[in-house]
Amino acid sequence: MVSVRRPARPGFTLKQLAELAGVHPSTVSRALDPLKHGLVAADVADRIRRIAEEHGYRRNSVAASLRTQRSTLVGVLVPDIANPVFSPIISGITEVVRGQGFSTIVADTGGEADSGLRLVDELIARRVEGLVLASATRNDPVLNHCLAEGIPVVLVNRADDLDRAPAVVSDDILGMRAAVEHLHGLGHREIGFVGGPERLSTGHLRRIGFEQGLTDFGLAFRPDLAVEARAYDIEAGRSAAVDLMRDHPELTAIVAGNDLLALGTCAAIRGRGLTCPGDVSVVGHNDMPLVDLVEPPLTTIRIGPRQMGHEAARMLLSLIGGEAVHHMRVVLPSTLIVRGSTAPPNKAAQRR
Amino acid sequence: MVSVRRPARPGFTLKQLAELAGVHPSTVSRALDPLKHGLVAADVADRIRRIAEEHGYRRNSVAASLRTQRSTLVGVLVPDIANPVFSPIISGITEVVRGQGFSTIVADTGGEADSGLRLVDELIARRVEGLVLASATRNDPVLNHCLAEGIPVVLVNRADDLDRAPAVVSDDILGMRAAVEHLHGLGHREIGFVGGPERLSTGHLRRIGFEQGLTDFGLAFRPDLAVEARAYDIEAGRSAAVDLMRDHPELTAIVAGNDLLALGTCAAIRGRGLTCPGDVSVVGHNDMPLVDLVEPPLTTIRIGPRQMGHEAARMLLSLIGGEAVHHMRVVLPSTLIVRGSTAPPNKAAQRR
Repeated sequence: MVSVRRPARPGFTLKQLAELAGVHPSTVSRALDPLKHGLVAADVADRIRRIAEEHGYRRNSVAASLRTQRSTLVGVLVPDIANPVFSPIISGITEVVRGQGFSTIVADTGGEADSGLRLVDELIARRVEGLVLASATRNDPVLNHCLAEGIPVVLVNRADDLDRAPAVVSDDILGMRAAVEHLHGLGHREIGFVGGPERLSTGHLRRIGFEQGLTDFGLAFRPDLAVEARAYDIEAGRSAAVDLMRDHPELTAIVAGNDLLALGTCAAIRGRGLTCPGDVSVVGHNDMPLVDLVEPPLTTIRIGPRQMGHEAARMLLSLIGGEAVHHMRVVLPSTLIVRGSTAPPNKAAQRR
Repeated sequence: MVSVRRPARPGFTLKQLAELAGVHPSTVSRALDPLKHGLVAADVADRIRRIAEEHGYRRNSVAASLRTQRSTLVGVLVPDIANPVFSPIISGITEVVRGQGFSTIVADTGGEADSGLRLVDELIARRVEGLVLASATRNDPVLNHCLAEGIPVVLVNRADDLDRAPAVVSDDILGMRAAVEHLHGLGHREIGFVGGPERLSTGHLRRIGFEQGLTDFGLAFRPDLAVEARAYDIEAGRSAAVDLMRDHPELTAIVAGNDLLALGTCAAIRGRGLTCPGDVSVVGHNDMPLVDLVEPPLTTIRIGPRQMGHEAARMLLSLIGGEAVHHMRVVLPSTLIVRGSTAPPNKAAQRR
């Protein structure tokens, strides 16, 4: 049996600590504040911290936040914390804000706008100083709410159609054009697309990138060459690819809107009794963990989710500090990684 | 250019809201407190919330937490938020505590004790009401610190050797015995082990489970049949497996301490010019995302990380509520999932 109770805190006050250290209470306050200790001479700050430690004095950051109206908390909204793409983004945000004395509260919306609105209200009630949304749709009710509340907000990975808030994203269009260029270079001419949801900027822009890629190489784009998966998961990708290949058995290559959709596409290819890349080549997007080890190892577009997190956190800290942010959309480069899921088209497959 | 500033909050007070609603201010306070609104009649609470909404009144939870000494925050320490095993644990914790009006602050220690100690101090300064440690070693300085501070704490996935805090874990020993039973049933008699770090309960107990498994079937255990990887990652698993197979070329099967170590073991098998499962079978642990899609698909022990999170959160809420917790260690069952990385031993390989 366990019964853990918090012991009574010693009644040692800030004032007593200041007297012992022979400084003004405001100096003690600054020395113990992770955001301000740089304002106190290093030897004085060290002495104050030593005395504080000896007497078991601990700064009450809740009281401090009420006095200063600063919580030093930032909120991060993700659509699905269990999706491996978001972990390094969160990690990157935390690394940067921690350096400025902030902590992050991570909230998982489950991809639902209602839940997102409720969570934002909850975070505002906790006086978070700013929010990073990794969950935004192209015209997001949660973003509308944040803007109406006037809380500093930055988007990451997914952007807003009207750039109403700064966003850090990867180059969705160029990434997909690079995928088409790679397939064209291998000799593919019949190329289809299994995209993510159009209500998300990643779904929308990557499809546009695919279309531009075809145009780059003088290949005709027809709307029925691109299908939209209802979610970014393996099963939605499989189901969309089944439809695409039923209508277009001539395809020798498929570009997918992310790696999970690409894995679903590979399953659909096997489901038709075909092989990847023997009959149909596949390219993904993101280079998420382990896609180098699946069979066949996935050719994909590598993005930098941790760097996205860093950049988004820096922009948010600027907004919180009242600085102007001049970049509405920071677009980070992505890289084509060629692995085993792409190969020259099989002549037999082309004659099917 | 953006310059987002928070607008001045309307000066509408709790008292004014109480007058409008014709109730005592403490009733308003309860009606708007997610932890207490059940104490107010539903129609009264609805009326108060409606008036609050009309007048843009928002409860200040920082001020509320100072008055009540409750922050309704819990902290979660993970060793590596980018490791896919921890996402569903965090998600599970959040699902349960949110139901009780709590939010979670997630902190990533990077597996370093120093960083863990600093983060715990930071979380205590924020008046978190309890902590879940997913980062514990078998004799963890961070846990020592939490116990000394008297803050409610629960461990998840990894336990403490002396059960000084309640822990929710999977059945590490039985899982590995099931792995050995499966391999023995296929006909394997020369079985080795690539384990996780012994300083972690998962590393230690899974090795013991492996030894017990051999004993269950009358196979001799020798210490040199088990090697310890320096970390739970693919490269550490590969390096440990290279050593193991160099010293024991007779092995026809290897049990690994988790899936990442198993993937590293597969790489080491390929590195010797051998195949899995043709020459050497491999079993992992955790059934993390995508190990069903790698080549060969991994035979592994499935755990329930989300359920672990649920259970840990329930125990923590009990401790925070001052209730006694009678279970020092909640051990959740795990299941053998048989896939393509295990097969009967190759007679040629056995004669090598």
